[in-house]
Amino acid sequence: MTNAIVSQSGGPTGVINASLVGVIEQVHKHEQITNLYGAVHAVAGIVKEAFVDLKKVSSETLELVATSPSSALGSSRDKPDAAYCEKILGVFKKQDIRYFYYIGGNDSANTCHIINEMAQQSGYELAAFHIPKTVDNDLLVTDHCPGYGTAGKFVACALMGDDLDNRALPGVKIDIIMGRHAGFLTGAAALGKQRQDDGPHLIYVPERPVTMDQFLADVEAAYKQYGRCVVAASEGICDTDHVTWAEKLAETVERDSHNNVQLSGTGALADFLAAQVKTKLGIKRVRADTFGYLQRSFAGLQSPVDVLEARECGRLAVQWSMSETSGSVAIRRLGDGADYAADYFRTELKNVAEKTKSVPDEYINAQGNGMTQAFIDYAMPLVGELPKTEYLGRFPKI
Amino acid sequence: MTNAIVSQSGGPTGVINASLVGVIEQVHKHEQITNLYGAVHAVAGIVKEAFVDLKKVSSETLELVATSPSSALGSSRDKPDAAYCEKILGVFKKQDIRYFYYIGGNDSANTCHIINEMAQQSGYELAAFHIPKTVDNDLLVTDHCPGYGTAGKFVACALMGDDLDNRALPGVKIDIIMGRHAGFLTGAAALGKQRQDDGPHLIYVPERPVTMDQFLADVEAAYKQYGRCVVAASEGICDTDHVTWAEKLAETVERDSHNNVQLSGTGALADFLAAQVKTKLGIKRVRADTFGYLQRSFAGLQSPVDVLEARECGRLAVQWSMSETSGSVAIRRLGDGADYAADYFRTELKNVAEKTKSVPDEYINAQGNGMTQAFIDYAMPLVGELPKTEYLGRFPKI
Repeated sequence: MTNAIVSQSGGPTGVINASLVGVIEQVHKHEQITNLYGAVHAVAGIVKEAFVDLKKVSSETLELVATSPSSALGSSRDKPDAAYCEKILGVFKKQDIRYFYYIGGNDSANTCHIINEMAQQSGYELAAFHIPKTVDNDLLVTDHCPGYGTAGKFVACALMGDDLDNRALPGVKIDIIMGRHAGFLTGAAALGKQRQDDGPHLIYVPERPVTMDQFLADVEAAYKQYGRCVVAASEGICDTDHVTWAEKLAETVERDSHNNVQLSGTGALADFLAAQVKTKLGIKRVRADTFGYLQRSFAGLQSPVDVLEARECGRLAVQWSMSETSGSVAIRRLGDGADYAADYFRTELKNVAEKTKSVPDEYINAQGNGMTQAFIDYAMPLVGELPKTEYLGRFPKI
Repeated sequence: MTNAIVSQSGGPTGVINASLVGVIEQVHKHEQITNLYGAVHAVAGIVKEAFVDLKKVSSETLELVATSPSSALGSSRDKPDAAYCEKILGVFKKQDIRYFYYIGGNDSANTCHIINEMAQQSGYELAAFHIPKTVDNDLLVTDHCPGYGTAGKFVACALMGDDLDNRALPGVKIDIIMGRHAGFLTGAAALGKQRQDDGPHLIYVPERPVTMDQFLADVEAAYKQYGRCVVAASEGICDTDHVTWAEKLAETVERDSHNNVQLSGTGALADFLAAQVKTKLGIKRVRADTFGYLQRSFAGLQSPVDVLEARECGRLAVQWSMSETSGSVAIRRLGDGADYAADYFRTELKNVAEKTKSVPDEYINAQGNGMTQAFIDYAMPLVGELPKTEYLGRFPKI
């Protein structure tokens, strides 16, 4: 008889709770686990021993949790150093915790990895499993990350609506989408395009640096072609010197505890780009929106495939931890399009820890301002069915 | 045998197309109408005679249009003066248009009114009907406006998700919501609150001016009470001198053709308020999002009640135009809560034209920083069922 702990780290997603519920439901099947501690606010909660008794939560409540956005146990941006990890291991030993399930991104995989190594070195028997989540889809090994499909669905629906809005009142519209280093989520802006002239007409991802001159030339050309222009740009878009535009425009930038520049929760980049278009191209109606936290935490919007896979990742981490001492759950794609299917496999923590996946070259067009059909084929099954839309301006004139 | 024309004006909504489809389906029932012209881009399209032949659009396409956000015929911000209205009437005479259906806000009702009076004065037989739409819900006479329920649902779902996000990573979060003069849409931020300590903890509407000192004191008190604070503020919030904060912070403001200050499509107000909280209260984690156009044009998100009512308003305008020469369609509430029901009545164009409804006093709390139960009772049936959410941090600690 022993105990287990589960926790959620980093930025929330729309399905990180589905993974949590997957962990909880599987733990119920393994009688050797007496208590399942839910650490409140990730590693910060572990060291403070702030635990919720997850085995006592009713299945009715758990189903509500599984469909709720954000991290039901709370999260943290703490990036534990060696001393912090020692403290965590100390709590595990004190509470006889032998199973550690950590739902998060590549930093969380690294924390998991460090603690697992420390446990081995000190001869403490521990199974440490990382369960992937990110809206950025930037983890290595796995085909894609739980959390991406749901955020991608939000972005796709947002751009579909926004593009129709821009048809009704034409001008230039710039939408800033999350993605510091990886452009997968911004790429999802392309998924709702149904007609040849639908927006977004331009998509910029961090993987393809672009000069301001090129950006403006692209906007001008699209505006000339379509009489309007919808742009989707990653918050992490950068100039050809690889410095992000957000950093260039911010004299003093806020950095989080991972030393990342604060890009979300501010409209500065959007307003800067809009001002550039307005002043340099002389286009009068220019608007910009920053999608902000809505794209990762919006109640009532989930990708069904994403929910299912997130839950399965949580469940499998528990199952595999009965026979393996560590690992990260990864997804393997088995079919494409309507035949999309996936299975799951274990990878070593070190393969995921601190590493970042970028959007592959073949997913970005040659001009660096749009996505390819290969990307659409990759992302569409993850986002799931999108609404169909129609407008009438294209119908025959009398 | 004669012709009819329909058009959509002003900012798009999530159900303005349902009203359009209501007009089209009803016109099919009146054989005396030979052609139904859909004017592209509102009054601008009328004077240019840019028309779509709406009787030729298939019912399959129309059902897609009815569920699509934004204005399917395109819109315009033109506010026609007398000369412009004369031109419009000239086109009506030339094309033998005897029925004019105009879907829009109070400016559109006014345009409708002017053209109707001009027609009467020149002895031209014309039925001119206004069909209400706004996300702001600021039209007089009608209990509420088509478009409000759907935008309100977006805002409610956004705040539900954002509040859970703020629970996971606590701090101050400020959300800027559309509403230049009326706070109904911002008030919808309160509709998703399920638990006593759910956010938004503070709601500011244009009807209740607030000083910066009071705003900061409110935020500080809420932050102390909850360990975090979610704020929903109208883009039109103003200081006690009735100048909006947006105007105060903007040295040069962009004005639209109605001489309104441009408040949407910029993150400046949100960033300004966040900076105030950060610097004056010394709270470290402060984020702000401006919901922008997503709240009026988001694919796949509609309030079912709103869709139904919007379509009925369009249908009835046509029906009533067979026996009346002018009017605006208004909604009367027949029951509350689960017994909510509505019927419709005709009001004079002049009762709606250019007038603006504000949020009644009894819908705003005494402190001017939140909504009352009376408001919830008013708005909830219009928005429809909201998702239920749950989190785990509140469960018993081990």
